[in-house]
Amino acid sequence: MTMKFCSHCGLDRLEIRIPEGDTLSRFVCANCGTIHYQNPKIVVGCLPEWDGQVLLCRRAIEPRHGLWTLPAGFLENGETLPAGAIRETLEEANARVALGDLYTVISLPQINQVYMMFRARLEDVDFRPGAESLDVRLFDERDIPWEALAFRTIARTLRNWFLDRKSGVFPLRLSDLSRRPPVPPDLLGAA
Amino acid sequence: MTMKFCSHCGLDRLEIRIPEGDTLSRFVCANCGTIHYQNPKIVVGCLPEWDGQVLLCRRAIEPRHGLWTLPAGFLENGETLPAGAIRETLEEANARVALGDLYTVISLPQINQVYMMFRARLEDVDFRPGAESLDVRLFDERDIPWEALAFRTIARTLRNWFLDRKSGVFPLRLSDLSRRPPVPPDLLGAA
Repeated sequence: MTMKFCSHCGLDRLEIRIPEGDTLSRFVCANCGTIHYQNPKIVVGCLPEWDGQVLLCRRAIEPRHGLWTLPAGFLENGETLPAGAIRETLEEANARVALGDLYTVISLPQINQVYMMFRARLEDVDFRPGAESLDVRLFDERDIPWEALAFRTIARTLRNWFLDRKSGVFPLRLSDLSRRPPVPPDLLGAA
Repeated sequence: MTMKFCSHCGLDRLEIRIPEGDTLSRFVCANCGTIHYQNPKIVVGCLPEWDGQVLLCRRAIEPRHGLWTLPAGFLENGETLPAGAIRETLEEANARVALGDLYTVISLPQINQVYMMFRARLEDVDFRPGAESLDVRLFDERDIPWEALAFRTIARTLRNWFLDRKSGVFPLRLSDLSRRPPVPPDLLGAA
């Protein structure tokens, strides 16, 4: 978030500069000297499985209202990664899961996020949409709404999972997602 | 960090309360309505190996000035996890590493951090202390200064690594570190 005022002294004398002994630009208050560090956030969630099907939530909030996602959200202060994944699944799908291994870890440097998705098994099928979901459903692989997924991180996690399921081995999948490079105009619409 | 003034409007009318539709307490500005979310930070680093020895840095900064640590620090905005681990190793030890797998992931809910440590191999032994280090050295297992390590996350990562090295298999180690429970007075000093 862009800062207009120093949260320590309240004045509007913030500068963007490299503090002494540092190597990166920060918001620095020219009045009181406070350095306001900003760091990436963790998005934590899981891939809940039930009898070969995967649970997806249809988003009732922006961004990507109406598109489908795995239950996930920002890790909160005071929370462990597994606790965050379980909480998000309960909030978005009213679903209880037994959490498995950490499965995908995806850096998104352009939006200052790191996704961390666990494998999970639903404990029952007594789920229903939470306040942030329009719908919650179980999908077979052939029915996954690939064209209506909310985020590339979710598509990648699902693709990896269906591939790894063939072998029954689910190694940790560490990767990055960068902004798509612009498509040259003469290639737009090409096959 | 505790906020005194709203960084959006500059007034000192921040309240700690649960915003509508939320479940957790946040800093909320009673003047402009801005909700100031605060989330855990990622500490990223690596365990640099060279011919069976491990590189440690002696801290020149607080906290834990004078104690030994693996190269690690806060992931920066705009950075991927591997890039952060490589940067921290260069900054603290002037050391270049080939990064391996993600190895330990440790939630520290009481201080709102998640440690993420990679395995790594030094590319050469032309290292020297960076501005935040007093000393940088390679240690055999028997010489690790266990009583002078800076953080429990670092001790755990090293212990796991020396154990896993015996089998040559280094699975992802996901865990939590909670505040130590207070020791009952009658147990203090007990064997």
